[in-house]
Amino acid sequence: MCASRPLFLRARAFSKNGLSKPNIGIAGATGAVGKEIMGCIEKRGFPYNDIKMFAHPDEAGDKVDFMGNSYTVEAMGDSSFDDLDIALFSAGGGISEVFAPKAAAAGCVVVDNSSHFRMDPSTPLVVPEVNGHAVKGHNGIIANPNCTTILMNVPVYPLHKMAGVKRIVVSTYQAASGAGLDAMVELEQQARDWVEGKEEVTQEIFGRQYVWNLFSHNSDIYLNTGYNEEETKMIEETPKIFEDDSINISITCIRVPVLRAHCESINIEFEREVTLEEVHACLNAAPGVKVVDNRETNKHPEPLDASHGYDVLVGRIRHDNGQKKGYGIEMFIAGDQLLKGAALNAVQIAELLLEK
Amino acid sequence: MCASRPLFLRARAFSKNGLSKPNIGIAGATGAVGKEIMGCIEKRGFPYNDIKMFAHPDEAGDKVDFMGNSYTVEAMGDSSFDDLDIALFSAGGGISEVFAPKAAAAGCVVVDNSSHFRMDPSTPLVVPEVNGHAVKGHNGIIANPNCTTILMNVPVYPLHKMAGVKRIVVSTYQAASGAGLDAMVELEQQARDWVEGKEEVTQEIFGRQYVWNLFSHNSDIYLNTGYNEEETKMIEETPKIFEDDSINISITCIRVPVLRAHCESINIEFEREVTLEEVHACLNAAPGVKVVDNRETNKHPEPLDASHGYDVLVGRIRHDNGQKKGYGIEMFIAGDQLLKGAALNAVQIAELLLEK
Repeated sequence: MCASRPLFLRARAFSKNGLSKPNIGIAGATGAVGKEIMGCIEKRGFPYNDIKMFAHPDEAGDKVDFMGNSYTVEAMGDSSFDDLDIALFSAGGGISEVFAPKAAAAGCVVVDNSSHFRMDPSTPLVVPEVNGHAVKGHNGIIANPNCTTILMNVPVYPLHKMAGVKRIVVSTYQAASGAGLDAMVELEQQARDWVEGKEEVTQEIFGRQYVWNLFSHNSDIYLNTGYNEEETKMIEETPKIFEDDSINISITCIRVPVLRAHCESINIEFEREVTLEEVHACLNAAPGVKVVDNRETNKHPEPLDASHGYDVLVGRIRHDNGQKKGYGIEMFIAGDQLLKGAALNAVQIAELLLEK
Repeated sequence: MCASRPLFLRARAFSKNGLSKPNIGIAGATGAVGKEIMGCIEKRGFPYNDIKMFAHPDEAGDKVDFMGNSYTVEAMGDSSFDDLDIALFSAGGGISEVFAPKAAAAGCVVVDNSSHFRMDPSTPLVVPEVNGHAVKGHNGIIANPNCTTILMNVPVYPLHKMAGVKRIVVSTYQAASGAGLDAMVELEQQARDWVEGKEEVTQEIFGRQYVWNLFSHNSDIYLNTGYNEEETKMIEETPKIFEDDSINISITCIRVPVLRAHCESINIEFEREVTLEEVHACLNAAPGVKVVDNRETNKHPEPLDASHGYDVLVGRIRHDNGQKKGYGIEMFIAGDQLLKGAALNAVQIAELLLEK
């Protein structure tokens, strides 16, 4: 395949060939999500012919080991995507803005983990368990939703189909991983600093003590609404993924001193009365969901249990004391931010492309 | 004063004498809250004539230093309260159940930090900023509410008076301190264990890794409702303190790896439309509240900022995207669990007794 072939032909070629082993690229291969993408490709047996590793020009020439081979990290350029069929981007919105259209123009389908194209009407925004069919409408770029959005969507969408979700109130407990590898390293370093009795812990990323502390999400706050960018993503992305703008979303995003799994406390108001039996049955049947809910032993979702796993854990399922009897539930979820919240969801989208 | 005098006479004597310097006792003097009670007595210049320190019989004979004097810890017995006017109990529900009535019978007014008497109709349950007047109705025992209840009540009550709170949805971020000194020590030890690279961290209190983790509150879950004891306390205590059972409360309680201040994400539905200006004005004028809310710098309440302080910090104040425009707000609070959530509130109640 070559860059000069028109996009529609490339798209047809990809489909016509029924490529069982595409050439793939990973943009941001040295980052936290990039590494997890490689892990998913390996563990899920994602088929590929060749793989290219892209990162910041400063890292060009570095080596990345993957499945027994050593790959040389490349900086992205205009011709980087000429021989690629699928590229998984996780290198920040600025990189996606510049290079994803170039890749698409070269006939390479981009699965983009940045927020840049998510709300673009011509770009599908996909959680495979919710709207996997939407990948069919892509124009070369498919957006991966924000981590908190994905993790909430996986269990709430089947409940929405079951009984109509009128409103959710969400409070998050977000891990350091959402802010990247450096943030995880800093949090760990702060624990070491604290144990060593240092007067002030390392705080280059967040500008504050994070260990033994928590704080409102570090993304900027929109001055007109008072919601920060992280919260606004869930508010905006969910209706697009659900293909339904009737859901009212209240959300508060908080960073807690946890390394790599997010939790969310979710309060749901339904259009009709629900029984806990049907809620459990719905969640037990839902793809990507694992119910962890034991009132007797008080065992419910925890970040450490969700870490390195594919499922969104759901527990503390109960009727809501504060709503009309039977019309609301409360629940608590945990999911791996780097996997289902990012890398796994991206690879699942790529798998849907193969299925075409 | 002596134990044989009838209760009503003792109560009158206390009032008649206008005791400016009562004899006080601290039950649970060696615990996390007991130490903070002493700190509040010292820092607030709470007047007293003599002070007795009570703890578990195993600790009887130990010494406690307080304001330049050394006190011998005593085990509580039937005659322990004969010479006392006010006793501050923070030694667990079982101790309160047995000894608070004995103290009251001896004419000593008990401010009880346990949950044992909170829902007893003849026992006032008091947050001084909300229903300080209720202390007047005591029969020898006044209950201190649960920490999460107090911290929520302080900012929400003035808003309720302002515009009528129909419903709140609360998710908590609770510190180790609520589970006692041993829990704080274990959490700190887990950080040391983790830094040392131990395969499994010390987990005698919570039976799980707490550092880099979080979990649904460790209190038992009521099998019929699905709410745990901690959540049920806020649901039951708030209407009694507000003297208003019209408020609908949804709540999820979570322990996070923080040492001594609790946070709460609070979503409020009002009976009428509110402006953010009047919400800010109300909270700025509210006793015990400090507004920390800067959208530009993203500075909002954090546990470390609330620790060792008396005020409940309130921030992230915004209109709720998920409710009828103007009828709801979201906010995030932080308060010292050991101080306003326990010791300070108890000492404030004792101060109201003095004012009689």
